[in-house]
Amino acid sequence: MEIAILLFDGITALDAVGPYEALSMLPGAQVRFVGKERGAKRTRSGSLALVADHTLSEIRRPDIVLVPGGPGEEALRHDPEVLGWLRAAHETSRWTTSVCTGALLLAAAGILDGVEATTHWSSFEDLAALGALPVHERVVIRGKIVTAAGVSAGIDMALRLAALEAGDETAMAIQLILEYDPQPPFDAGSPDKAPPAVLERLQARRRARTPT
Amino acid sequence: MEIAILLFDGITALDAVGPYEALSMLPGAQVRFVGKERGAKRTRSGSLALVADHTLSEIRRPDIVLVPGGPGEEALRHDPEVLGWLRAAHETSRWTTSVCTGALLLAAAGILDGVEATTHWSSFEDLAALGALPVHERVVIRGKIVTAAGVSAGIDMALRLAALEAGDETAMAIQLILEYDPQPPFDAGSPDKAPPAVLERLQARRRARTPT
Repeated sequence: MEIAILLFDGITALDAVGPYEALSMLPGAQVRFVGKERGAKRTRSGSLALVADHTLSEIRRPDIVLVPGGPGEEALRHDPEVLGWLRAAHETSRWTTSVCTGALLLAAAGILDGVEATTHWSSFEDLAALGALPVHERVVIRGKIVTAAGVSAGIDMALRLAALEAGDETAMAIQLILEYDPQPPFDAGSPDKAPPAVLERLQARRRARTPT
Repeated sequence: MEIAILLFDGITALDAVGPYEALSMLPGAQVRFVGKERGAKRTRSGSLALVADHTLSEIRRPDIVLVPGGPGEEALRHDPEVLGWLRAAHETSRWTTSVCTGALLLAAAGILDGVEATTHWSSFEDLAALGALPVHERVVIRGKIVTAAGVSAGIDMALRLAALEAGDETAMAIQLILEYDPQPPFDAGSPDKAPPAVLERLQARRRARTPT
């Protein structure tokens, strides 16, 4: 089972690494980190780089395609090489998946046209504008297309996929190895749970960045 | 605020990347990925590499020291350069922290002598043998020493640290940006919650690897 995870500059590292940890433990899994060019791809802060060992043209028919998100995603929405690779890989994939704003790239490739999907809570309008039908769920499975909400949701998605591919016992064993027994100190991980002041602070910061 | 995250070959990537995502959003945070040598450090499977941009000698007085775990940790338990760096950094740090079996490195450096700490559930005996006092909690805070349980526990630890450093509102904002509203498909993330058959399967695999 070949699993291709797309890397690019401006990636949110946890979008890729959360699912990597879970999916790489699937029986027979071969994870390939792919990029337009080989080499280090940096997060927006610049302080972390993940290495793409393979170019897109080397990994043409992965069983699982995983598209992480991050601020660098936007620069690829009109990139014919990346969009063409996604479309071609989707034709033969078992699962085509995204985490966070990775869904916007799948949508830009036309893969989510009229399909229910999710993304980071702050990007629902963008997702709709690109032709998908946004759904407020943590993991959305529609046929072979699986989209996860923001950043950390990729871990939950990967465990769902692991169960579908290898059964509940294997997925639970992976969860136990990762000691994924979450105990966040606050219950503030989604817009409907966070205190209004916290949500408003982020939305104000976002408005300040985005000229309307 | 300078945050040093140790990288090494055989690291568990999520141990480092989970806390990185949360801590890098702290006001004024500068995250430095450090290694014995600069360059790519690979996970055990070999398919993912994280890049250390700095050598140990370049980052001598970080405010936060974070030691991830992973199978490569054991090779460093007798490495005088790494242990010496940890001891020196701990002298001036605000927080000395570990995720998963990273605690075994802190213990090997003598930093956990007689100190209550946690690690991955499968490494409690090793942690005790190295002089620490194992505690079955997800995050253990004792003075400025903070240890997290296995792999994904680093995210919970980082949010606790964020709250201590920058207040609850900032920590909640970070949680909301990461959309950390966990919804694992199973409740199998700790040995006391996983079905006995799942736990026994992992323990049998572990016994097969470790000659007694």
